[in-house]
Amino acid sequence: MNNAENDLYLRALRGETVERTPIWVMRQAGRYLPEYRAVRAQAGDFLTLCKTPELACEVTMQPIDRFGLDAAILFSDILTIPDAMGLELVLEEGVGPVFNKPVRSAADISKLSVPDMHQDLGYVMDAVGVIRKELNGRVPLIGFTGSPWTLASYMVEGSGSKDFRRIKGLMFESPDDAHALLQVVTTSVIQYLDAQVKAGAQSLMVFDTWGGMLSTTNYQYFSLAYMQQIVDASKAAHPDVPIVLFTKGGGQWLEMMAATGCDGLGLDWTVDIAAARKRVGEQVVLQGNMDPVVMNTGTQQVQDEAAKVLAAYGHHSESDKGHIFNLGHGIQPFAEPENMAALVDTVKQQSQQYHS
Amino acid sequence: MNNAENDLYLRALRGETVERTPIWVMRQAGRYLPEYRAVRAQAGDFLTLCKTPELACEVTMQPIDRFGLDAAILFSDILTIPDAMGLELVLEEGVGPVFNKPVRSAADISKLSVPDMHQDLGYVMDAVGVIRKELNGRVPLIGFTGSPWTLASYMVEGSGSKDFRRIKGLMFESPDDAHALLQVVTTSVIQYLDAQVKAGAQSLMVFDTWGGMLSTTNYQYFSLAYMQQIVDASKAAHPDVPIVLFTKGGGQWLEMMAATGCDGLGLDWTVDIAAARKRVGEQVVLQGNMDPVVMNTGTQQVQDEAAKVLAAYGHHSESDKGHIFNLGHGIQPFAEPENMAALVDTVKQQSQQYHS
Repeated sequence: MNNAENDLYLRALRGETVERTPIWVMRQAGRYLPEYRAVRAQAGDFLTLCKTPELACEVTMQPIDRFGLDAAILFSDILTIPDAMGLELVLEEGVGPVFNKPVRSAADISKLSVPDMHQDLGYVMDAVGVIRKELNGRVPLIGFTGSPWTLASYMVEGSGSKDFRRIKGLMFESPDDAHALLQVVTTSVIQYLDAQVKAGAQSLMVFDTWGGMLSTTNYQYFSLAYMQQIVDASKAAHPDVPIVLFTKGGGQWLEMMAATGCDGLGLDWTVDIAAARKRVGEQVVLQGNMDPVVMNTGTQQVQDEAAKVLAAYGHHSESDKGHIFNLGHGIQPFAEPENMAALVDTVKQQSQQYHS
Repeated sequence: MNNAENDLYLRALRGETVERTPIWVMRQAGRYLPEYRAVRAQAGDFLTLCKTPELACEVTMQPIDRFGLDAAILFSDILTIPDAMGLELVLEEGVGPVFNKPVRSAADISKLSVPDMHQDLGYVMDAVGVIRKELNGRVPLIGFTGSPWTLASYMVEGSGSKDFRRIKGLMFESPDDAHALLQVVTTSVIQYLDAQVKAGAQSLMVFDTWGGMLSTTNYQYFSLAYMQQIVDASKAAHPDVPIVLFTKGGGQWLEMMAATGCDGLGLDWTVDIAAARKRVGEQVVLQGNMDPVVMNTGTQQVQDEAAKVLAAYGHHSESDKGHIFNLGHGIQPFAEPENMAALVDTVKQQSQQYHS
């Protein structure tokens, strides 16, 4: 196959008939790769790596070069928008993200404004441009964002959280303030994805890492409603750019997620993909969903578990939108690089039988 | 009402018609209560508190005395069985449980044996007896255990975990060893619950804290299958003692959980209880499920959100088993004690309209 012609991922996301199941992996450019760790060491810290387009491009390309994955994803962080809003993001190894200036009051929220996508976040758009040029058509480039609820959670908590008591406190006690925060974040996200597409992103993904911490009703009002705005705006501006929603822990809510009009749903590993296909397979492409921990085990386990996921989705049909292989969450730092090679080979070989 | 006659919780769990919705709260005896913190300080550390029947009884009674809840739950820890197996449990404030001697190999697993319920875990049975005597029929006493998967997770990880890579590594790479571990734990749990009932526990609950970290298939084989053994054994030995299963993050699996023949299902706060009632309400009592974070907010929010949960379950009917009010997870240390009083009052008052 001519590299310039691998648009399998985009064709699959459009629900077209494809010859095999495409594969990419969340956090495919990451700490499990020695060549990533080398560039990361060169950059000094994670945020510098994100903010230096040439280095972001280099690590984005590493898993494409090494494993022949079917899509590249912009190397960046989900917290670039709050950082650009002035919250001062600090990313330390092993600590997780911390904001020096978290949002803790209605006054803090009222001071927030939509960042300028070129002045404040130009490094992201520059990275997209550099990566597209370097890819030169080999595989499509995925742009991404954190979901408004996920970004707002980090902004209010000031870091990761086990119980999300600050953001949920705001939601329960001052829902209008919570909505004001979510709206300024959503408006920013919409402009951010628009700018990424204009810079060259060919597909979009929304990571709703913390939507699964909400009750069903609050998920609808405080997370999904804002992802709906994002889908609507993206489809209005760029109808041909597919957009995928991924709520970790959202397996109960696939029907309402599919009803947003998005093109695909990311499934975490807890979801039975065969059951998900029955529920929403005619409406959306399903992306996922092997347990990422399998990548830390033996090659035989990787081959077996990948084959199980392919078999669980089963034979593709014209009435269903189809399947894109991925893990159910990001690959972990402990994963063996050779397991990624085995995974890609297994999916490329074993999936053909389901596309005849 | 005569205190000695409050068997509302047991009648509700039997699916009988009751005059209002009973309420108890996971971790109702806990750090949010100043009188608990005083006894805890007196005991010195958490494990001493668990292992001293008189003190365990004292903290068990505190929320009953203060709030008029409809059930007491044995004050203990879910990790007593592995501790009795020799893993040396250490519980430090803010750190979470740690085992000095985690289980890391097939050899470690083969050395495990079922503890003697009276020699090694007699303090638990003694606490049950002391509490039953002190309760003197005021409200029923709930005995409990961690699920085999949850206990095995802690035993292999040696502590809490974000990714459960050690126990899942065992599961994927050495499934026979994982099953051997789960079986010795399950046999222990069955004897443990039997001994609790013989000591006076009137109802049982299985906390499957980490089952929700598994894929649907692995949940069935590595968590639910062992809870099925527990339900079967408990029903065979004590057919009149109700047993409730609670898998945190198990909202996708309610049908298979209900099919075990248990009497009730605990629902975490992410589950739409109205939808859960449609799915399994004819088979099992539903217990839950307000977001525990609400208890950290204002009294008005507590009243409003509790009313929403009651309304979501809706009017009780003879064809459905019914509802027991609880939070969707344990009450947090940051909760306001006066919110618990407001919660109990709201449920007692507002629920009557749904039982006419």
